[in-house]
Amino acid sequence: MSGKSFNRREFIAHSAAAAGLLLSVPSIAQLSDPTKLSIVQAGRLIRSGDLSPVDLVQSYLERISHLDQRLNSFITVTGEQALFQARSLAAELSSGNWRGPLHGIPIALKDNIDTSGVRTTAASAVYENRIPQENAEVVNRLREAGAIILGKLNMHEFAFGGTSAITHFGPVHNPWDLARIPGGSSGGSSAAVAARLCAGALGTDTGGSIRIPAAHCGIVGLKATHGIASIRGIIPFSLSLDHVGPMCRTVGDAALMLQAIAGYDSRDPSSIQVQIPRYSSALQRRTAELRLGVPRVFYENLDPQILDAMDKAHDVLRRLTAGMEDVKLPPTPQMPLGISEIFEYHAGLIEEKRELYQTLTLQRILQGADLPATDYIRAKVELKLARNAIAHVFERVDLLITPTMANLPMTIEAALKETVDGSASIRNTLPFNLYGIPTISVPCGFSREGLPIGMQISGPSLGELDVLALAHAYEQGTDWHRQTPPLTW
Amino acid sequence: MSGKSFNRREFIAHSAAAAGLLLSVPSIAQLSDPTKLSIVQAGRLIRSGDLSPVDLVQSYLERISHLDQRLNSFITVTGEQALFQARSLAAELSSGNWRGPLHGIPIALKDNIDTSGVRTTAASAVYENRIPQENAEVVNRLREAGAIILGKLNMHEFAFGGTSAITHFGPVHNPWDLARIPGGSSGGSSAAVAARLCAGALGTDTGGSIRIPAAHCGIVGLKATHGIASIRGIIPFSLSLDHVGPMCRTVGDAALMLQAIAGYDSRDPSSIQVQIPRYSSALQRRTAELRLGVPRVFYENLDPQILDAMDKAHDVLRRLTAGMEDVKLPPTPQMPLGISEIFEYHAGLIEEKRELYQTLTLQRILQGADLPATDYIRAKVELKLARNAIAHVFERVDLLITPTMANLPMTIEAALKETVDGSASIRNTLPFNLYGIPTISVPCGFSREGLPIGMQISGPSLGELDVLALAHAYEQGTDWHRQTPPLTW
Repeated sequence: MSGKSFNRREFIAHSAAAAGLLLSVPSIAQLSDPTKLSIVQAGRLIRSGDLSPVDLVQSYLERISHLDQRLNSFITVTGEQALFQARSLAAELSSGNWRGPLHGIPIALKDNIDTSGVRTTAASAVYENRIPQENAEVVNRLREAGAIILGKLNMHEFAFGGTSAITHFGPVHNPWDLARIPGGSSGGSSAAVAARLCAGALGTDTGGSIRIPAAHCGIVGLKATHGIASIRGIIPFSLSLDHVGPMCRTVGDAALMLQAIAGYDSRDPSSIQVQIPRYSSALQRRTAELRLGVPRVFYENLDPQILDAMDKAHDVLRRLTAGMEDVKLPPTPQMPLGISEIFEYHAGLIEEKRELYQTLTLQRILQGADLPATDYIRAKVELKLARNAIAHVFERVDLLITPTMANLPMTIEAALKETVDGSASIRNTLPFNLYGIPTISVPCGFSREGLPIGMQISGPSLGELDVLALAHAYEQGTDWHRQTPPLTW
Repeated sequence: MSGKSFNRREFIAHSAAAAGLLLSVPSIAQLSDPTKLSIVQAGRLIRSGDLSPVDLVQSYLERISHLDQRLNSFITVTGEQALFQARSLAAELSSGNWRGPLHGIPIALKDNIDTSGVRTTAASAVYENRIPQENAEVVNRLREAGAIILGKLNMHEFAFGGTSAITHFGPVHNPWDLARIPGGSSGGSSAAVAARLCAGALGTDTGGSIRIPAAHCGIVGLKATHGIASIRGIIPFSLSLDHVGPMCRTVGDAALMLQAIAGYDSRDPSSIQVQIPRYSSALQRRTAELRLGVPRVFYENLDPQILDAMDKAHDVLRRLTAGMEDVKLPPTPQMPLGISEIFEYHAGLIEEKRELYQTLTLQRILQGADLPATDYIRAKVELKLARNAIAHVFERVDLLITPTMANLPMTIEAALKETVDGSASIRNTLPFNLYGIPTISVPCGFSREGLPIGMQISGPSLGELDVLALAHAYEQGTDWHRQTPPLTW
């Protein structure tokens, strides 16, 4: 790590000029280590020439090499390629071409997101040597926006389950407590972001796989409206429920990343063709008129420390908004939906490579075998009607507030004993995949033992701006996102 | 039939005042028989008080009683109820409340469209005594718009097949030649509209079931973009492909009927939430800049008389527009889609009442039995990608022109011998159900033996205004819609 292009004196002059933009002014501590910068902050310093993309990449690569042996968050680090991209983006900047706020920002990707020429494994022995020929659509969009791909992140095999620890590459460790899981399935993504091994990451979320690990690692995880970001080129779980989205240290960062990946893709059957707003404008949006809904059933049987954190979060939210009221959500379909869809993808693969699947993963996938079309058709109809019905809830309230998880992160030991039913961990997250509505998980406290707690904010279909607005206001009104894992091991 | 409230002298004064509106001015022949009025014309006379809804209903009921024994187009005539509605709507008008251009217009419904308290059979013995408790959504909308429901129309059992003649209530006869089929499955609707037994009708269309009988009976049949009109309360064939739409004697009438039934229905999983334009505005829309596409494959193996009629139609269309060019359409999915979906509806019913199905219908439905969810999921994905891909064709051209049918209406005798594969009749119509795009069939000529020929105009998703604009311009530029069946039998 170095200060080659990271000129502290110039930066101080710069930050004095931008005195009004308090949120974006890095502290002295951050200046000595650019991995402490948010994406928003780093992006501004890169644009002004006060931070070199090459130095930023090098800083992250150094942290990866120091810390990731313990965390196991990366499956593949694309160090040389990242440095090459960084140099090329630095040159582009020198010649006056600035691509936008992600120009030169090092991002890592969950390893079910295809990268051309770079192994993409879904953390499975089945795909141990799988090298895609094309980038996933979101990777192309990130690259066009100037992001640098730092590597591929560990995950649960084929993205199964919220609290398992099953991966061909060994379990990921929670940076807040190495004995515990980071949550999943995007656990490598959350651990790497929390431990500052990348500026931000992409995760995927079929039943909670972005928000669960975000909550367990004390970071921000966002799944937007179903279909907003293309999932073409991502190893699928369930076409009806799959989302790809940002995992970051701040809400402002999530808005920037969502901006880069959002947009219609006619070759993705789940993609929707709608106007994409400027998501960062949400950070200036008023929250005082927002009415919040509390679906009480999401608060049942919570860990008392999570209930306590939610109570305190509600106090903050009441001050920021027009108030809260209890709401009831419409019933959600009883699946065979996701499980039918994942089997559709794996049917042929299982015939070929059955022995390479982890036992529990195979068991779970085979639950979807031989389901008749009639059951699937009924589930699909129920899903659509639930998505239509949830809209009525948002005639009464603007946003929904729920705890992301009912429990604190369990130990890896306990997770490895998990049986085939993984439904407990996703009880508060899956409904929002079924409804298809934008939902963010933001840090909202810590347990006595220092484990992070997350809160979900959900809005109506295409209601990303209000979701981001309240999440940002809450973040600014609290201190949780400034906490960092001790990493003293 | 009478002239009680139909005052010819007043009408002539009225029509003189409206001298500019040539299209809406009835001729002397029409005045003596209000069933000769288009919906547009009748609606204006009702509004001005020159035509009573009661007289109009009575005129249609008289024609039904004189003519329908030979045509067999109605399963149920709701004469008393229609007259009651007519009186009530007349009173409403006297008290100054005009509901709109369908106020007092007698409409009949294909018998798979639920009517509260009125038997709805899908032309099957299975449902011979089925009396729904609720109206289909489109029936409520028609009633709110002031339409009068005249009865329920014969059809192919459960809406199967384009050229079969299978119905529990005996085959419908084509008013242009009683020995021939009217086409289907909405054959009762097309026969009744062509023979002036109702002012307009609703049909349903899964693979061509509105457009095929429209073409075979020399009337206008329109299926709008998939999801524009609610199909809730209609006995389903295939949720992914079912459409409900108007069958009328003019394009202007179809625009009015579509206006009444279009709009979002959150309880219909296929319904889409979009802005509904004023469809009648299409009749004033310019067509001179429209570019037309001709997918040549739809012109292969046509009856020479149909090819000849299409050649002449192309000449007219070239004069009305910016010209024509050949186009290729993207591939459409090879079903098990529709057949899976119809089996989903019938699975339980077949267990209960297998012996009441017509043999061929049962055979066809059972083709969808025991299909695995995986095949259906793949078909659904292909369907969505085809719907996305067709949008690219409309970057080059504005509308597509195709012959509705490859053949003239066959004899009822031949149709009754039809085997299980009914795919030949729908080869030119089904693609537009798969693409989900608005398609109208308009009369475009007659064979030497006096059998009608139909032409399809298709536009992009939500492109109803251009479709209606060109269909109306073509109609006004030709004389086909003024031909009426001899009814000399």
